[in-house]
Amino acid sequence: MTCEVVLARRPQGALQASDLRLQAQSLPACGEGEIRLAIRYLSIDPFTRIFLDEQALGGAMQGLPLGSVLPGAAVGEVVESRADGFSPGDMVEGRFGWREAIVTGTDGVRRLDPALGSPRAALGILGLPGTTAYTGMITVAGIQAGETAIISSAAGAVGLTAGQIAKIRGARAVGIAGGPEKCAMVLDHGFDACVDYKAPGFEQALVDACPGGAQVYFDNVGGQVAMAAYAALGRGGRVALCGLLSLYQGEGGEAGDLGRFMRLIMSRGLRIQAYGTVQICPPEALPDLSRWLKDGAIHIPETVVDGLAAAPQAFADMLTGSAQGKLILKLP
Amino acid sequence: MTCEVVLARRPQGALQASDLRLQAQSLPACGEGEIRLAIRYLSIDPFTRIFLDEQALGGAMQGLPLGSVLPGAAVGEVVESRADGFSPGDMVEGRFGWREAIVTGTDGVRRLDPALGSPRAALGILGLPGTTAYTGMITVAGIQAGETAIISSAAGAVGLTAGQIAKIRGARAVGIAGGPEKCAMVLDHGFDACVDYKAPGFEQALVDACPGGAQVYFDNVGGQVAMAAYAALGRGGRVALCGLLSLYQGEGGEAGDLGRFMRLIMSRGLRIQAYGTVQICPPEALPDLSRWLKDGAIHIPETVVDGLAAAPQAFADMLTGSAQGKLILKLP
Repeated sequence: MTCEVVLARRPQGALQASDLRLQAQSLPACGEGEIRLAIRYLSIDPFTRIFLDEQALGGAMQGLPLGSVLPGAAVGEVVESRADGFSPGDMVEGRFGWREAIVTGTDGVRRLDPALGSPRAALGILGLPGTTAYTGMITVAGIQAGETAIISSAAGAVGLTAGQIAKIRGARAVGIAGGPEKCAMVLDHGFDACVDYKAPGFEQALVDACPGGAQVYFDNVGGQVAMAAYAALGRGGRVALCGLLSLYQGEGGEAGDLGRFMRLIMSRGLRIQAYGTVQICPPEALPDLSRWLKDGAIHIPETVVDGLAAAPQAFADMLTGSAQGKLILKLP
Repeated sequence: MTCEVVLARRPQGALQASDLRLQAQSLPACGEGEIRLAIRYLSIDPFTRIFLDEQALGGAMQGLPLGSVLPGAAVGEVVESRADGFSPGDMVEGRFGWREAIVTGTDGVRRLDPALGSPRAALGILGLPGTTAYTGMITVAGIQAGETAIISSAAGAVGLTAGQIAKIRGARAVGIAGGPEKCAMVLDHGFDACVDYKAPGFEQALVDACPGGAQVYFDNVGGQVAMAAYAALGRGGRVALCGLLSLYQGEGGEAGDLGRFMRLIMSRGLRIQAYGTVQICPPEALPDLSRWLKDGAIHIPETVVDGLAAAPQAFADMLTGSAQGKLILKLP
């Protein structure tokens, strides 16, 4: 027999502990190629909340069926093995879910190196939180020495790791966290500054903590905290959109278009880049366009309006969508 | 004497022709190094609207002072020259503004090659619309053969050019335009499909026009049309955010957070990428993290909770922000 945590009912807004239920479950015998584990440590992650709604992330994914065991990474100790390469006493990590014991195959199961210290690191710096922070700060945001990175949810496992990675790479790390206690802890971990989003004047304090504008925002939360961070970015800033914690708890404060927009960006894994042509137009643009124009590969119709006196009305009409192609004013 | 168009008063919402005013202006003599031009063609561009508000793009830029000549690209004929390399009869392009004649220095003034046909092309395919389309579709979105690109404001100069560039590169081009007449014109220019945003069922029609999801969205408009296009993108879609025409006309339908968010992205030239760690975590992540952990360069506090029965409440507390660092459940 083992005990497990299942989804008893869909949370209405903020999760209540009573939305989840413990239940006893009998354990099957260990088959050929399988191992039996006693779970020692279980990772509890914010993004798990996404899967508790019927339609996760505003319909982008299917939610967990009612009655299912909650998913999640865990560290277990092998207590019986009928699989090659696994022996009783081995510590392993995998997505075993919220349970005390499991009989499982070995696909996706990772043996832990005792030389790396506590097996709990496999759920933190050497687990999904660590690789998520690394991927976002280095691969996506491409943090560089001398830059400033803003990190929201900075007191969380992902945010703390992301800020420390920014420091390792020679950047400034500016955290956002809720309350003085969390902010103090974030500073203890080497961040250069930490701004309390629950304090009055938060938006301005964040701008002040990033003189000249930050280059990178590592977003864990979305919503109004994210809006403040976007406003503290300088021109050409990069955003690694890692999570939307403030939007996970149902349709509360962000039920409107902004919430829908952020969920779309997140759930589709989109990359959005606003650009100024003048800044980044490549040198081959005009030669290419000239050739295509000459070859007839591109053409656009012109709407030609006569005389400067016609300009104001032509402009007003264009803005309400009545022009086609290029609107050009012809002067005598 | 020349005639010019100036900003008479700030538009309230949609621009009225009467917000602009024609006025006569005397022309100075042509000084050393200067040329005098008779303007032949003037480009009228949607983004000019941005600068008519006191605070452009929601405060990101200063607006045009009242009484100023409207800025814009134009083609002029040199009628007098006291500058090297410019002779009467030459056609030139530059940001001369909305006027009939100008005396100007030659910085930023481009002589036009008569071999490339009409000098009007310097305001279209070989001007800012063309280079804007090129930069967005090729440099920013990186369109590839076989992909599908959605292009909003497809009947405009930038949109039409962007779609034809997608076709030249072997991609499918799906336009969005207002009304059957514009859609027909867009199809005449080689787009594979064009969806009318004023027609009922627009959102679904756009999804249907992009089987499997589009890879690229070239956004000229923002607002609700953009929301529909985001929803028609597949996983990992790229957005080249070129303009926000629907948001230029003041604080109308997009006064809320979504409008503010889109303006911030645009005015700061941001790049936003939502990512899934599992998909793009680089192979060096775990070795790097292991080394940093061993060296003590990264550490995170753990909140360890005992026993499976404590899991539901611990999870609910984390989601409302009371956990610090990594939340781990310890089992016996």
